[in-house]
Amino acid sequence: MKLATLRNGQRDGRLVVVCDDARRCIDACPVAPTLLDALERWSAVEPGLQELSRTVNAPAALGAMPFDTHQCMAPLPRTWQWLDGSAFLNHGRLMERAFKVPPVADFETIPLMYQGAADDFLGPHDSVLLPCEADQIDFEGEFGVVLSETPMGVTAEAALEYVRLIVLINDWSLRAFGPREAKSGFGFLQAKPSTAFAPIAVTPDELGPAWQGGRVHLRLQSQRNGEWFGHPHGREMHFHFGQLIAHAARTRKLSAGTIIGSGTVSNTDVNAGSSCIAERRMVEVIAEGAPYTGFLQFGERIRIAALYADGMSGPFGALDQLVVMASRACGDKNPQ
Amino acid sequence: MKLATLRNGQRDGRLVVVCDDARRCIDACPVAPTLLDALERWSAVEPGLQELSRTVNAPAALGAMPFDTHQCMAPLPRTWQWLDGSAFLNHGRLMERAFKVPPVADFETIPLMYQGAADDFLGPHDSVLLPCEADQIDFEGEFGVVLSETPMGVTAEAALEYVRLIVLINDWSLRAFGPREAKSGFGFLQAKPSTAFAPIAVTPDELGPAWQGGRVHLRLQSQRNGEWFGHPHGREMHFHFGQLIAHAARTRKLSAGTIIGSGTVSNTDVNAGSSCIAERRMVEVIAEGAPYTGFLQFGERIRIAALYADGMSGPFGALDQLVVMASRACGDKNPQ
Repeated sequence: MKLATLRNGQRDGRLVVVCDDARRCIDACPVAPTLLDALERWSAVEPGLQELSRTVNAPAALGAMPFDTHQCMAPLPRTWQWLDGSAFLNHGRLMERAFKVPPVADFETIPLMYQGAADDFLGPHDSVLLPCEADQIDFEGEFGVVLSETPMGVTAEAALEYVRLIVLINDWSLRAFGPREAKSGFGFLQAKPSTAFAPIAVTPDELGPAWQGGRVHLRLQSQRNGEWFGHPHGREMHFHFGQLIAHAARTRKLSAGTIIGSGTVSNTDVNAGSSCIAERRMVEVIAEGAPYTGFLQFGERIRIAALYADGMSGPFGALDQLVVMASRACGDKNPQ
Repeated sequence: MKLATLRNGQRDGRLVVVCDDARRCIDACPVAPTLLDALERWSAVEPGLQELSRTVNAPAALGAMPFDTHQCMAPLPRTWQWLDGSAFLNHGRLMERAFKVPPVADFETIPLMYQGAADDFLGPHDSVLLPCEADQIDFEGEFGVVLSETPMGVTAEAALEYVRLIVLINDWSLRAFGPREAKSGFGFLQAKPSTAFAPIAVTPDELGPAWQGGRVHLRLQSQRNGEWFGHPHGREMHFHFGQLIAHAARTRKLSAGTIIGSGTVSNTDVNAGSSCIAERRMVEVIAEGAPYTGFLQFGERIRIAALYADGMSGPFGALDQLVVMASRACGDKNPQ
């Protein structure tokens, strides 16, 4: 089943069920007005959503309308919790070097995870409004899962049962803040502006064999201004999503609608390219002694999509966003 | 104006307006069913809430009912964002020593702030369900502000205009996770289970001269099992709330309902005591070479209230909570 959220002037948008080829969709309002509402009472609404999915996929497609991703908000335009792991160790190791922070103890046995802002997500074609190019604007392509209510203390194995949807994410990042915030001990805050999502959230069954062992077995392809930037594969994720969920739920329950991210998709094979600029720059430093790829400037565009093994576009649709200067000028970074 | 949220079986509870002496309250449903709803359209609902405040404070108090804090949820049982600063530098310095992490650069000019879980707050008398005493259970008494929608790039001075309510918080903490999470660079996650709130959220005018320069000029008194633990004063807050808000809004806007915490209230005068156990332990280490105050065990109780200069209880009411073992056993801390 494929779900999306259309703009309707309301903060949480309007839930639709999307057909297999993503050309049509059907209003889900009779079953659940918003995706957050659906997630909070999933077992009650799932049969109705499945019925709508059958309708929109039938030849007659009664009540369907064209599906236009430019009308899409993030599948969840806002939610109660967004937790982002760093489960691709190749990315983690390169970022340690980029940020010049010491290696983390138990790096391979305990996931890294920060809590991000869940109050204001961006849709797949929303402009990315940022205050200042000097903040070192970067993107981060990753996969994520959306949970129903998950109990405290859940095991890694049981945790996968709470995965309701899988999503594709661009975790926009500002690298100028990263090293200081990493060293502060309090984690990333100014380094993480609003996060963006591909238009379609899919149930795990929709991925078929590409959902395996709690990992998304698809390539994540990034393009910068139409040029290939990378296509690393999701199978190299060290911690699977069940482990990330169990880590997050160690000392608290997770409300329905919680999103857990994989962290930047990254492969040890440098020919796979990167899903963020900071990582490519560190690869350049290692290979050539200095970075030569610049961070993003206003007017640049990042496109992210998942790809099947045959190169066909994956089920999430694409993020394709322009970086734009916010109206306020680039100010002093100190609060005084 | 004083606001509270009563349990009604729904996740966001039911908003009430509380009278000055906190003996009565009146249903706010005709104006706004929940506090989150009220914050999202504050200018439209404020006159109606003020009218209810006048009614509940009038001698006749038509439509009022007794106010019982045991029926209270957190004023916001959940919200879209919870950001906690560390604005009392005395606390920050002691915690650096406790966690054995190096001093943070620009400690006195750039606030420290982590993003916490906003999806599941505790009410003032809710039991604190935690998995394991070995996690080193601690409390943290602090003040907080609740915002209406705040634009990206707001200045510290202008930021105070977005403060709608002031709250009293117990930011429950698990110290066993703190040092590793601080060193990881990703910030506190397992170290921060559900946060708890005193029953009454107040508008800034309600504090009179105790709301001054963006700081709460009241003592915060903590008791452990009925015994005094500390009563440090809020005026020693180094960064004021406007500075904390501006820091949070540097690269993103903040949705209505965002809560910003002061961090643990702490004074340089050791006679003021502490608002958390970790800090008292560090004071003991400095004075006597070793800590002798233990972390909390199941069955212990923490009470936190604000006090006026004359020792009278402040406007927020008290948090008074019991620490209880969650049903799941204390497990392996690793996710495998």
